[in-house]
Amino acid sequence: MYKLPIIYTIAPLLHSADEAHGFLRSAARRKRKEIMTVREANAEVIERLQKAEVFLTGAGRASEHIGFLSAGKSLLHSGPPVDWDDMCSAMKNAVCGAAVYEGWARDPSEAAEMARSGRIRFASANDYHAVGPMAGIISPSMPVWLFENRTYGNRAAVTFNEGLGRTLRFGANGEDVIKRLKWMEECLGPIMSEALELSGPVSLTEIVSRGIQRGDEAHNRNKACTGLFIRKMAPYIALTRAGREEIYEVLKFFDGNDHTFLNLSMGLSKCTMEAAYGVPGSTIVTCMCTNGHEFGIHVSGLGEKWITAPAPYAKGNYFKGYGAEDANPAMGDSYVSETNGLGGFAMGAAPGLGKFIGITPRECMQASAAMYSITCAEHERFRIPFMGYSGTPLGIDVRKVLDTGILPVINTGIAHKEPDVGQIGAGIVYPPVEVFKKAMLLLEQGQE
Amino acid sequence: MYKLPIIYTIAPLLHSADEAHGFLRSAARRKRKEIMTVREANAEVIERLQKAEVFLTGAGRASEHIGFLSAGKSLLHSGPPVDWDDMCSAMKNAVCGAAVYEGWARDPSEAAEMARSGRIRFASANDYHAVGPMAGIISPSMPVWLFENRTYGNRAAVTFNEGLGRTLRFGANGEDVIKRLKWMEECLGPIMSEALELSGPVSLTEIVSRGIQRGDEAHNRNKACTGLFIRKMAPYIALTRAGREEIYEVLKFFDGNDHTFLNLSMGLSKCTMEAAYGVPGSTIVTCMCTNGHEFGIHVSGLGEKWITAPAPYAKGNYFKGYGAEDANPAMGDSYVSETNGLGGFAMGAAPGLGKFIGITPRECMQASAAMYSITCAEHERFRIPFMGYSGTPLGIDVRKVLDTGILPVINTGIAHKEPDVGQIGAGIVYPPVEVFKKAMLLLEQGQE
Repeated sequence: MYKLPIIYTIAPLLHSADEAHGFLRSAARRKRKEIMTVREANAEVIERLQKAEVFLTGAGRASEHIGFLSAGKSLLHSGPPVDWDDMCSAMKNAVCGAAVYEGWARDPSEAAEMARSGRIRFASANDYHAVGPMAGIISPSMPVWLFENRTYGNRAAVTFNEGLGRTLRFGANGEDVIKRLKWMEECLGPIMSEALELSGPVSLTEIVSRGIQRGDEAHNRNKACTGLFIRKMAPYIALTRAGREEIYEVLKFFDGNDHTFLNLSMGLSKCTMEAAYGVPGSTIVTCMCTNGHEFGIHVSGLGEKWITAPAPYAKGNYFKGYGAEDANPAMGDSYVSETNGLGGFAMGAAPGLGKFIGITPRECMQASAAMYSITCAEHERFRIPFMGYSGTPLGIDVRKVLDTGILPVINTGIAHKEPDVGQIGAGIVYPPVEVFKKAMLLLEQGQE
Repeated sequence: MYKLPIIYTIAPLLHSADEAHGFLRSAARRKRKEIMTVREANAEVIERLQKAEVFLTGAGRASEHIGFLSAGKSLLHSGPPVDWDDMCSAMKNAVCGAAVYEGWARDPSEAAEMARSGRIRFASANDYHAVGPMAGIISPSMPVWLFENRTYGNRAAVTFNEGLGRTLRFGANGEDVIKRLKWMEECLGPIMSEALELSGPVSLTEIVSRGIQRGDEAHNRNKACTGLFIRKMAPYIALTRAGREEIYEVLKFFDGNDHTFLNLSMGLSKCTMEAAYGVPGSTIVTCMCTNGHEFGIHVSGLGEKWITAPAPYAKGNYFKGYGAEDANPAMGDSYVSETNGLGGFAMGAAPGLGKFIGITPRECMQASAAMYSITCAEHERFRIPFMGYSGTPLGIDVRKVLDTGILPVINTGIAHKEPDVGQIGAGIVYPPVEVFKKAMLLLEQGQE
């Protein structure tokens, strides 16, 4: 286990007692100052997280709301930046599906050739105020939800959730997948854009705080939040100018997909965390994500600098017929939920999710409780009834992770590594400890 | 505390040891036989409760589905049968509101005179396969939900929920109340009738089993179940021939009323319990209700015989500005939920309700857990995650209530005793112990 190299390692190198005492006094002063500075910086970050009030403000075409997608054959992906050659197979398959969906290629193999020869531009969605679950591909024509953090004015955009089974985000790219994406573009997106104009902005912070009371942890269990969102929006969806059958299809699609809210929860967390970037000295993690090749984090005090290490594999429950040998490495931007006190950090509220990934209600609570050791605060609005209405652990502190050796607990879906299969399980994944070590070294360098 | 008069009380009256032993042996044989018979009878009742699968099959006009309401100026009320003179003030006020709503009287005072002079017929809804919350008034023109227990073929009908605040069921009868009832008759009822024709029957047993996983106890907390119902029905409501604005109003009304599902939960429990009536020898309670004057129960082995005692008052939290002196006695048919393992018996699943009535999550669990002492089984489908997925306590046994002295715990809304106020609080109410004593005496007589 990594230990911060302060005082203990320096003292033995000194010669005289006086010298040693002098140095120790000076080091203690520096340490006190450092601690105060870090504490203040982290307090500032926590305040920004607690005060965030994120609204869903609308829906629109990705190319019109995300600068990178406004021109050329451009795609965003999940995790830190990655080139085609380094992409894992599930992400490559999703890229090929997106290229076919956009009409850039006739089939996945032509699309792969385009990507290989550099005719598709790639960037990390995270670098453009966007996120996506699993492969997280965002292409220009896709509809996106639009978010605004009312307290701080920053915005974000996230794709619509496709449902379970064979989906682009899990690396499937067959005709059924493309057909659904087209329907989302032509029917679902415009209807939700109109419905949100009619309803006005919807507070997602409020929906999640209620969902936590009803068994969700708002990462891999979104049943209650999805229901809260549907009942809130249904009246306005019905008021749109769309035809009766189209409205029926939209409401059926939402009702049939308990992960409808996943992408909204991700937008909430992205838009919350981005308000807390760049507080000098802060050791709080503001982003965790993986592209299936590398796991990356952001730390508030390090701004938008990517700190990466090889992507880990999840430990989990596999659906019948599948095993660890079929799994793609962990992939996706949804781990931003955990930085915001949700997902694994709120698992104590969601025994149903525990059941899905094979742990008891008590273990769910233990997992969440352990996260208090590596965080700076309790979320004031996300409270777990059966943990005495404690707020969920909020604000992962790089120092505390290294001091305790306790890694953030993240729950995740597991994708098949081959195309056209989709999700094959769900489980727990831990970030590689290297990212926290590297971050701490950079933070220390910044203080010198 | 009442104790069953077996062996202990009889032995001292005997003269010789032989005689005493002979009698004791004979009593023990009788007791074993009785216990076996009762046990078998209760097992039969429990099986019927466990196997019940209740569907919402439609909606229609009360007069067309409840025989008693098909002719004349007829009203059903909650609780056991009661005459006008004995009705509590909140029920009288609701009766007057219903008479004005039906156009039988111009105002509440004229309606009161009609009722006083015998020009309105009254009956207990319970005696006509119907139930209603609080005053539980069902008048001929009101729309009702229609239920069917698919396993046993029996049916039930329940009014639509009016929302919170000033409502007929809480004894309010002003213009706003009548106007809402008219809208429910002319707009809401027909739209839901058409929507249910489009959707086909909806399993309420399934919705409640999910709601229990999400913080509901399906009596005074119905937030999750209401959401599950709305998301299921919204697509079909949107498909009806109704105008866009009317559909919007219906979806807004449901979303604005977390008790939308209360009346559906009551229908589920009524339709479940009625399949378990009349099993000879069974000591299981099949109905609990009160009209605000008398509390009444049914016991399976006693068929449809009413066993009554004076209505108790609830102990509870009052809304600001109100206190116990303003309260109407406990009133309503919704206590049928508790006979079906819901409400107070499922409170361990619903810490949010505990908060509302002023108890902690732990106390919620303790209240539910105590009910295992007076019931015969755990519900196979209503399971409480944080109590190790135990089924809720099912089948109140009159004998166990008297043996332990533990009374069923019921949560309830509290009505103001004067008209046009409505709900003034919520709390806990216990049935009067007399009903269990009387029932036990009748059951013992039946065995002789």
